[in-house]
Amino acid sequence: MEHTGVTAAQGFSAAGVTAGIKASGKLDMAVVVNNGPEYNAAAVFTRNRVVASPVKLSRTTVADGQLRAVVYNSGNANACNGTQGDTDAALMQTRTADRLGIEKHEDVAVCSTGLIGELLPMGSILSGIDQFNDALGSDAEHGTTAAKAIMTTDTVPKQAVTRRNGWTVGAMGKGVGMIAPSLATMLVCITTDASASPEALDEALRQASSVTFDTLDIDGSTSTNDTVIVMASGASGVSPTQAELNEAVHAVCLEIAQQMQADAEGVTKRVTITVEGTDSDAEALNAARTLGRDNLFKCAMFGSDPNWGRVLAAVGMADAAMNADQISVSFNNQVVCKNTTGVPGARDVDLSGEDIDVRVDLGTGGEGTATVRTTDLSHAYVEINSAYST
Amino acid sequence: MEHTGVTAAQGFSAAGVTAGIKASGKLDMAVVVNNGPEYNAAAVFTRNRVVASPVKLSRTTVADGQLRAVVYNSGNANACNGTQGDTDAALMQTRTADRLGIEKHEDVAVCSTGLIGELLPMGSILSGIDQFNDALGSDAEHGTTAAKAIMTTDTVPKQAVTRRNGWTVGAMGKGVGMIAPSLATMLVCITTDASASPEALDEALRQASSVTFDTLDIDGSTSTNDTVIVMASGASGVSPTQAELNEAVHAVCLEIAQQMQADAEGVTKRVTITVEGTDSDAEALNAARTLGRDNLFKCAMFGSDPNWGRVLAAVGMADAAMNADQISVSFNNQVVCKNTTGVPGARDVDLSGEDIDVRVDLGTGGEGTATVRTTDLSHAYVEINSAYST
Repeated sequence: MEHTGVTAAQGFSAAGVTAGIKASGKLDMAVVVNNGPEYNAAAVFTRNRVVASPVKLSRTTVADGQLRAVVYNSGNANACNGTQGDTDAALMQTRTADRLGIEKHEDVAVCSTGLIGELLPMGSILSGIDQFNDALGSDAEHGTTAAKAIMTTDTVPKQAVTRRNGWTVGAMGKGVGMIAPSLATMLVCITTDASASPEALDEALRQASSVTFDTLDIDGSTSTNDTVIVMASGASGVSPTQAELNEAVHAVCLEIAQQMQADAEGVTKRVTITVEGTDSDAEALNAARTLGRDNLFKCAMFGSDPNWGRVLAAVGMADAAMNADQISVSFNNQVVCKNTTGVPGARDVDLSGEDIDVRVDLGTGGEGTATVRTTDLSHAYVEINSAYST
Repeated sequence: MEHTGVTAAQGFSAAGVTAGIKASGKLDMAVVVNNGPEYNAAAVFTRNRVVASPVKLSRTTVADGQLRAVVYNSGNANACNGTQGDTDAALMQTRTADRLGIEKHEDVAVCSTGLIGELLPMGSILSGIDQFNDALGSDAEHGTTAAKAIMTTDTVPKQAVTRRNGWTVGAMGKGVGMIAPSLATMLVCITTDASASPEALDEALRQASSVTFDTLDIDGSTSTNDTVIVMASGASGVSPTQAELNEAVHAVCLEIAQQMQADAEGVTKRVTITVEGTDSDAEALNAARTLGRDNLFKCAMFGSDPNWGRVLAAVGMADAAMNADQISVSFNNQVVCKNTTGVPGARDVDLSGEDIDVRVDLGTGGEGTATVRTTDLSHAYVEINSAYST
């Protein structure tokens, strides 16, 4: 088995334990530890203005560009719990630092995922943290156990690795648009043994996120808890260039994002939408997102229905430059609409496969282009997301 | 039976006929004729930039504030059909003017609704128009037949009337978010025997639309064909004030919008969302729309699940001023979240009824407020909208 995940890079250990937060008795806490010699880090967080207590805490924690560990729990988001939520997140942090022998508790980030609005069961949380020392290890199995412990409605753990000349980037992730019984969170932890400054990590992470996690749009919803963290141990002794670092971080982010798309709850189709022929990349992204969030379009994809009229109706509402009489659309590389008019045979295109590629040219002749990954809207999505939270 | 619909006001006649556009053999063409003595009119159209040929034509037609008739067909949207679509819409207009003895064909507006991207069957269309003269009448039955003839996936015809001191406003409508086999259109025709200038009609229509049809948001989709037309015959001899006209037009628009919400395909719940406590009405509307379009929230409503965490996660992404730590939420007048924190018993609120009232206070203390009507996201919605268009 290839060594993938957060322990693939030198200088990292990980653990996953059963703390008793989940009624199912499954793994529900994890920790990823950076053993150095360097402790540089960067992070991106949810753009939602309603943020969970662990996000508030971790934003502050990572501000100095240093992290020695990240502690995770699944089964409870610790969001919308008022000041008690803040107190509980802080206790998770200090207890983890204490038990792992980390001098400054500000060097520990905290991530939670699960139901919103329920207080953390702190007895379970603390007993979980107390198990970390015995459970830590640096092999592939320990990384996989940590990846399992952050799962909520994910059906498979999500891990990635990319190896370069003497250095490695690994990652684990969970979530996005998988939501029962409550809103799900995207959590990602990226580790590398490269030597890289916090600024270099920040640039690499922002560039990669903007074209991977930020364009993975299952249902347009954004969690209160979304957090992506990258830590660099420097243990390889290699200092990649910024371009090399960007490329490698992008590679693992893309792989995790694709695994999230494939595992999104209720998915029967993976839909990749590319918009071009508008004035800027930002406008192309607006149009691709508008289409990717259109329920009529997503239902048509579920039905394998090449209903290109819904594509036009959706992009026609987007905030993007377009020539409304010269829009073209193709499904799986077959042109179905040209000059905003259907082409013969357009309704016979076969969309029965699991992957559907949609391309829209907005007809301005501009250079703007963007790609968004989404899914269909299925019965299973409704079923999963209408289940009682109680 | 109360005389409601487009023939309730003096000076109007209507007809509904079977032209053969629908394979089912149901009524599929209608006309509403203003017999004067005045012919003032106003209209609002879809904000979509991809617009159907009849919308392009009717925009021009109504620009001078005069209309003598509106011709309707269902079963085919005449959208995205290139210049042939424009030609066909123009022929619908001139043939209707010719057969009804209307001197200027620019006094006839055209509305179509149905599948996008199929050419109009002009043989059927012209034979339908040729039936109008024999089919026209001014009683309640003729209005109802016209209302039936514009239906697509509507299950009931939608009509309204409001009577004032000596004058009357009536209306018929179809659609919004009822979409199989393709994107559905909202078409509304309002008639009044008041004497009112085109400018007065325009103001009344825009004010009413902004708080009725514009805030009825079933799935966030906007059709290529949406058209709301008001015509005034002056036959009552009464000239209401602007305020009186506004109030009466609003009354019929609200009634039609409520009928649309109740009849939206796949609906099991009618959800009314009111947002307050933000800086402006526009910001409150943004937040209410963001919530009304959030699939996770809509699935929770389908499941009668008082999952207030999804409300916070949705409004947290809205473009509206908010105090993220002081948001409150109530379901059916029971507070479930205060200061962005759950209140005891929040998960026990009974949402099993068909109507759910959601109120969100964004906590800034501002005066902004807005209400949006939406529905749940149900299995039936997915079923209906994933059916093949072919």
